[in-house]
Amino acid sequence: MLDLRQIRRIVDVALDEDAPQGDLTGEVFVPAEAVATADLVAREEGVFAGADVFRVAMTAIDPRVEVDLAVRDGERFAAGSRLATVHGAARAVLRCERIALNLVQRMCGIATLTARYVAAAGPDVRVTDTRKTTPGLRALERHAVRCGGGHNHRHDLSAAVMAKDNHLALVDDVTEAIRAARARLPHTVHLEVEVDRLDQIEPVLAGGVDTIMLDNFTLEDLRRGVEIVAGRALVEASGGVDLDTIGAIARTGVDLISVGALTHAARNLDL
Amino acid sequence: MLDLRQIRRIVDVALDEDAPQGDLTGEVFVPAEAVATADLVAREEGVFAGADVFRVAMTAIDPRVEVDLAVRDGERFAAGSRLATVHGAARAVLRCERIALNLVQRMCGIATLTARYVAAAGPDVRVTDTRKTTPGLRALERHAVRCGGGHNHRHDLSAAVMAKDNHLALVDDVTEAIRAARARLPHTVHLEVEVDRLDQIEPVLAGGVDTIMLDNFTLEDLRRGVEIVAGRALVEASGGVDLDTIGAIARTGVDLISVGALTHAARNLDL
Amino acid sequence: MLDLRQIRRIVDVALDEDAPQGDLTGEVFVPAEAVATADLVAREEGVFAGADVFRVAMTAIDPRVEVDLAVRDGERFAAGSRLATVHGAARAVLRCERIALNLVQRMCGIATLTARYVAAAGPDVRVTDTRKTTPGLRALERHAVRCGGGHNHRHDLSAAVMAKDNHLALVDDVTEAIRAARARLPHTVHLEVEVDRLDQIEPVLAGGVDTIMLDNFTLEDLRRGVEIVAGRALVEASGGVDLDTIGAIARTGVDLISVGALTHAARNLDL
Amino acid sequence: MLDLRQIRRIVDVALDEDAPQGDLTGEVFVPAEAVATADLVAREEGVFAGADVFRVAMTAIDPRVEVDLAVRDGERFAAGSRLATVHGAARAVLRCERIALNLVQRMCGIATLTARYVAAAGPDVRVTDTRKTTPGLRALERHAVRCGGGHNHRHDLSAAVMAKDNHLALVDDVTEAIRAARARLPHTVHLEVEVDRLDQIEPVLAGGVDTIMLDNFTLEDLRRGVEIVAGRALVEASGGVDLDTIGAIARTGVDLISVGALTHAARNLDL
Amino acid sequence: MLDLRQIRRIVDVALDEDAPQGDLTGEVFVPAEAVATADLVAREEGVFAGADVFRVAMTAIDPRVEVDLAVRDGERFAAGSRLATVHGAARAVLRCERIALNLVQRMCGIATLTARYVAAAGPDVRVTDTRKTTPGLRALERHAVRCGGGHNHRHDLSAAVMAKDNHLALVDDVTEAIRAARARLPHTVHLEVEVDRLDQIEPVLAGGVDTIMLDNFTLEDLRRGVEIVAGRALVEASGGVDLDTIGAIARTGVDLISVGALTHAARNLDL
Amino acid sequence: MLDLRQIRRIVDVALDEDAPQGDLTGEVFVPAEAVATADLVAREEGVFAGADVFRVAMTAIDPRVEVDLAVRDGERFAAGSRLATVHGAARAVLRCERIALNLVQRMCGIATLTARYVAAAGPDVRVTDTRKTTPGLRALERHAVRCGGGHNHRHDLSAAVMAKDNHLALVDDVTEAIRAARARLPHTVHLEVEVDRLDQIEPVLAGGVDTIMLDNFTLEDLRRGVEIVAGRALVEASGGVDLDTIGAIARTGVDLISVGALTHAARNLDL
Repeated sequence: MLDLRQIRRIVDVALDEDAPQGDLTGEVFVPAEAVATADLVAREEGVFAGADVFRVAMTAIDPRVEVDLAVRDGERFAAGSRLATVHGAARAVLRCERIALNLVQRMCGIATLTARYVAAAGPDVRVTDTRKTTPGLRALERHAVRCGGGHNHRHDLSAAVMAKDNHLALVDDVTEAIRAARARLPHTVHLEVEVDRLDQIEPVLAGGVDTIMLDNFTLEDLRRGVEIVAGRALVEASGGVDLDTIGAIARTGVDLISVGALTHAARNLDL
Repeated sequence: MLDLRQIRRIVDVALDEDAPQGDLTGEVFVPAEAVATADLVAREEGVFAGADVFRVAMTAIDPRVEVDLAVRDGERFAAGSRLATVHGAARAVLRCERIALNLVQRMCGIATLTARYVAAAGPDVRVTDTRKTTPGLRALERHAVRCGGGHNHRHDLSAAVMAKDNHLALVDDVTEAIRAARARLPHTVHLEVEVDRLDQIEPVLAGGVDTIMLDNFTLEDLRRGVEIVAGRALVEASGGVDLDTIGAIARTGVDLISVGALTHAARNLDL
Repeated sequence: MLDLRQIRRIVDVALDEDAPQGDLTGEVFVPAEAVATADLVAREEGVFAGADVFRVAMTAIDPRVEVDLAVRDGERFAAGSRLATVHGAARAVLRCERIALNLVQRMCGIATLTARYVAAAGPDVRVTDTRKTTPGLRALERHAVRCGGGHNHRHDLSAAVMAKDNHLALVDDVTEAIRAARARLPHTVHLEVEVDRLDQIEPVLAGGVDTIMLDNFTLEDLRRGVEIVAGRALVEASGGVDLDTIGAIARTGVDLISVGALTHAARNLDL
Repeated sequence: MLDLRQIRRIVDVALDEDAPQGDLTGEVFVPAEAVATADLVAREEGVFAGADVFRVAMTAIDPRVEVDLAVRDGERFAAGSRLATVHGAARAVLRCERIALNLVQRMCGIATLTARYVAAAGPDVRVTDTRKTTPGLRALERHAVRCGGGHNHRHDLSAAVMAKDNHLALVDDVTEAIRAARARLPHTVHLEVEVDRLDQIEPVLAGGVDTIMLDNFTLEDLRRGVEIVAGRALVEASGGVDLDTIGAIARTGVDLISVGALTHAARNLDL
Repeated sequence: MLDLRQIRRIVDVALDEDAPQGDLTGEVFVPAEAVATADLVAREEGVFAGADVFRVAMTAIDPRVEVDLAVRDGERFAAGSRLATVHGAARAVLRCERIALNLVQRMCGIATLTARYVAAAGPDVRVTDTRKTTPGLRALERHAVRCGGGHNHRHDLSAAVMAKDNHLALVDDVTEAIRAARARLPHTVHLEVEVDRLDQIEPVLAGGVDTIMLDNFTLEDLRRGVEIVAGRALVEASGGVDLDTIGAIARTGVDLISVGALTHAARNLDL
Repeated sequence: MLDLRQIRRIVDVALDEDAPQGDLTGEVFVPAEAVATADLVAREEGVFAGADVFRVAMTAIDPRVEVDLAVRDGERFAAGSRLATVHGAARAVLRCERIALNLVQRMCGIATLTARYVAAAGPDVRVTDTRKTTPGLRALERHAVRCGGGHNHRHDLSAAVMAKDNHLALVDDVTEAIRAARARLPHTVHLEVEVDRLDQIEPVLAGGVDTIMLDNFTLEDLRRGVEIVAGRALVEASGGVDLDTIGAIARTGVDLISVGALTHAARNLDL
């Protein structure tokens, strides 16, 4: 799902951004024939994400640079542990390391935060990301969420329908609008609708949806919502989710909890 | 310095990523002729950055969407204040809002954090960013740093020379290596060298540098370093900088303090 | 769903292909100030598709060219009817007309063929396309299918899962493999599995699928399949579908009939 | 003439279109280490075209996939014959096969139809294509025409001049206009002019053309046209050409017969 | 023939190259609202080329910049004459002027040199360019040659066939090789063959060529060559052509004289 | 500093420009299996530049082509000397040679001219290029200047500030404007200001600049200017520089002499 072609394009953009005319410092201080060996060491504990990204980034200038990864995507590591070793032409290593680090630190930060949310939520619910990702890096960030044990929500606006309050405000009869949408959409397109109140659930279900999102509901209302839906659709909780609340939300019986923070509030891990 | 052409390209990449085949939800739920008005409201206080980015992003699908900005780049705003209002075709507004938000939240987060560092550092020192930026978004993030009252360091590896310990480890005679580098480099290229100990300062200055970076020095050693350099180069402090320490570091008399956290540890602001 | 940005890119590629150095004939035979008016006339009856494509293509060189469309997407037209009139600089019109025609003829061909399949299938079943589209033109061809009253299947390999015989040949326990896939996939991803025999249906349903495809089944077996599935998933018929057989297939009670011919066997309409 | 660089670009566009985020089905159902062997078998007889295209497409994701082609471009094959065998990582094979098939089926369809036209026309005339090709795929389709024994007409609007009735309607004196055009054009540019009546031939020849196209002429008028031209230019017949008429048209003595149907009416071959 | 789309792409590449992150000087020294008026003045006499290029380049950043051209392509101008005036936002004018100048100076240099060659050659021969153009700028340079009264040779390796000594060295029977080539090539492709000695002319003509190039022939041999060819093909002289020799070469009766110097030895005009 | 990635892109653009549909001549005259060996020989003496460019260009179509370079960048060669030998598939060699030659001839022309300027200037001054480079080829041309012993000036408008008379005409108080600019600019950005008269020097120095450019000064005034500056900034001479004057200019004691002619008046070397 994380495609090598995508990784290569992202690394390519980053290389152009970071060294449009080459690395002046390497050119004047590092002999062309100098060889370097460097370890990627974790300064804090976490969950790894980005093995392929690291490999592609470190070999982007010189494919002969050797990359030895000591962890795999999704694996936990302790502070101080060696994550990878690179060995090759010093100029190539020095030019690529910042890009590799910027990407992998971000991915590990997301994976690590996701793992905390997943642990807090418990095993009976899916913790998913949202579209609150860094523009241009969505594929990497979604992959990092998976590495942390989370799940992905729809990839983009073309991948699934999610009708929110501002959409439904524009229609007269919600049930009818959902039916009409269903009739026009390919059968492979997942249809999700957000509701803000319990009394909106039945009209939405009557239209026929795959997932119903209960937005900013109290725990009590979430429980009631799950009862009302009664398996006729997946139930997603959203809003007011943090590490303190997610456990209780999970115990309301919802199927999914979407957490924008996984990607937009993750801190880069210190590597 | 933040170029409209760059903003357009970044927004273009984001649009392709977020809606490769259009917005299914808008298509099936929003009438083509529906018009929407939306306010961008701050949920927390901060410093604004990204006026041009917001405007370009919100008008990328339909140039007739009207964007009225209530704040300017660099301006402070209170929690709850309206930052902007957009008005136009509902489909276009709904399709672009996530992208505009993702970018502007990140920029405001950086500007706001930068402003805190700048305030803590006081008026007599430059607080600068580093190359620890999000791949693909460096131009926006550097602009946000400026909006927060910070300064930019070199843009990229081609823009200035910065020799670090791993570079100098590869040369025999530092003074000679710096002289040789200077002789080869264009006269417009700024030459900065990092030192880890006080006794490295003189040999570096003897080579002729524009800036000398004192990396991970104690406050006492920073003061000593400033005395030794004595105006023969700019002095940059780096390492161990946070909101608690930056004031004391600034008072050592250094000219510059570079803070990777400005961009890599900034949290998206909640808008 | 058919995005203007996509249309513009396709037209752009076509313009580069068809006149990399401009139109020599226009340059030497047509005065720069000459103005032309041209009608797009149907030589055979059909269903129209491609209004936006025609408009974008005809105005790609000179946005002042006026395009007046006499039909809308999805509308039927008789042989001999005027479909559109263009008016503007003769050089621009002559340069763009071949591209506009090549694209619209293809789209109308697909819409017209689709309409015949849809009519033959009757109102109680969805006729869908497949991935057998012209490389580079999938978005246009899918749109043409919709104009003809057909529905789209999954857009691409990233949009939904469809496990075929060659996939299932690689797994030991189909039920278990489907369950494991479901557990890993985002909840928004539609999961479809193809079966070749009636006895494969129950194990597939046990895994939990959204659609089950009965591939190359006899009419009798299709009927039996529909009974077995009994509403637990959508049922798609595939294979051996042509204008003579589709009516009978539809009457077996399947929900969907996918027809590769809609796009890969459509003949360009003569305009 | 069919350039590997062009093939790679077309395949690249197709891969992005067909799997923008990778192949979900392969990812969840096919073990990374699974190996597949697949035969490309013809379901109907035909003429092969697209060996390089097939090879590039099948190895686009994984260059280690082995492609063994049993036919060469331009070779005839019987229904049921094996055309090629691919062997390699199952994920890579499954991801690329649809693209390879879509392209090669189209090319074989064109080559096969062209071969029928060429056979019907006989050995004394050139059967050529036109610009009625699929936007984005012209290079492949022209190659397929050559594989079928046909010839290519001008590649594009920049490659040669072809003045049609709508061009000539804009000039006062055809002879003079052709002379003026000739004087401005590079000597390497072929100049062709279309005429609709026999009495237009002499004025056109007087201007000096390389090819004269007799558009929609009766067989009798074609014969007369050939006599009038008498070797002073190549003679091309166009319009009303199908498999039933091409033989008689060829026997009128024209040098070239251009057939839009070769590309725009070709049916994908069933492979 | 000089396409606006091509000009825009070349200007786009140049803008990216010359101001990847905007114009720092304009940003810090020029008020955003400052307006500038600037004249383009010729410091030496010459022939103008590049009106469209100048207009596109000067309006690339701000389309509201007004460009008033006082000369047209192909027109002579005296030293000291005003060629154009631009008026608009000072930042936009200052950012684009270097690019506009770099391109137009080069084009005027080529047009001016071409005009001298054309004058020296006299009216009875075509003076043509070659493929010795600046990579990336061929379209502009060929246009400049036309502005100077010269003609273009083939645009590129795909546009016409030119067999040189190193090609013919690889074939056994030149006549046969030319015949075979002719049989394979589209009828619109011009076929030119280079010969080094008079006795090679007949075998080449026997194969059937459109142009025969006499490479590095003495004046006497050129005259003999023209007699031998006797109108059966165009005759091109090549090699040893300069402003002193071109008149005599023209008087030998050749049809074309190709001069690499037009583009590869032209000096930028001082504007 | 001359990046392989940049070279590859420039060669790629050139290949597309020079053979968009392949090399027709090679296709019809050169057997696919033919092998060619060719020497690159200098027809005049000079300084070499472009080893990497030559290698990348000659292997762009077929990486198996062997390139043996007999000179290195910056090395002098005599007329008649062999510079390189290529050996490989004849089609690939013939297709790439024009591109390789066009680029390397230009680079050697610049390196050779630069070497003459450097020799005339003597050892105590830097001879630098300007932004008067060929659009799209700046990286190559700057490299060629270095090969000739010259130095590079700022790469582009984003790389350093250079305030000229038309900038300063827009400000009230030059000293204050420079101070304000300095305060806003990153500390790594070199700040250069041009003056036209001696009395402008002190106000400029008071603002704090890195380089002061004395534009079109007499030799006497250059000497006076150097005295006034007295080491407080680098001094650059500009204007009226040619091979006859540069020696005397150098002896005035300036640090830098910028010469637009290095790139914009260089003649392609004959190889």
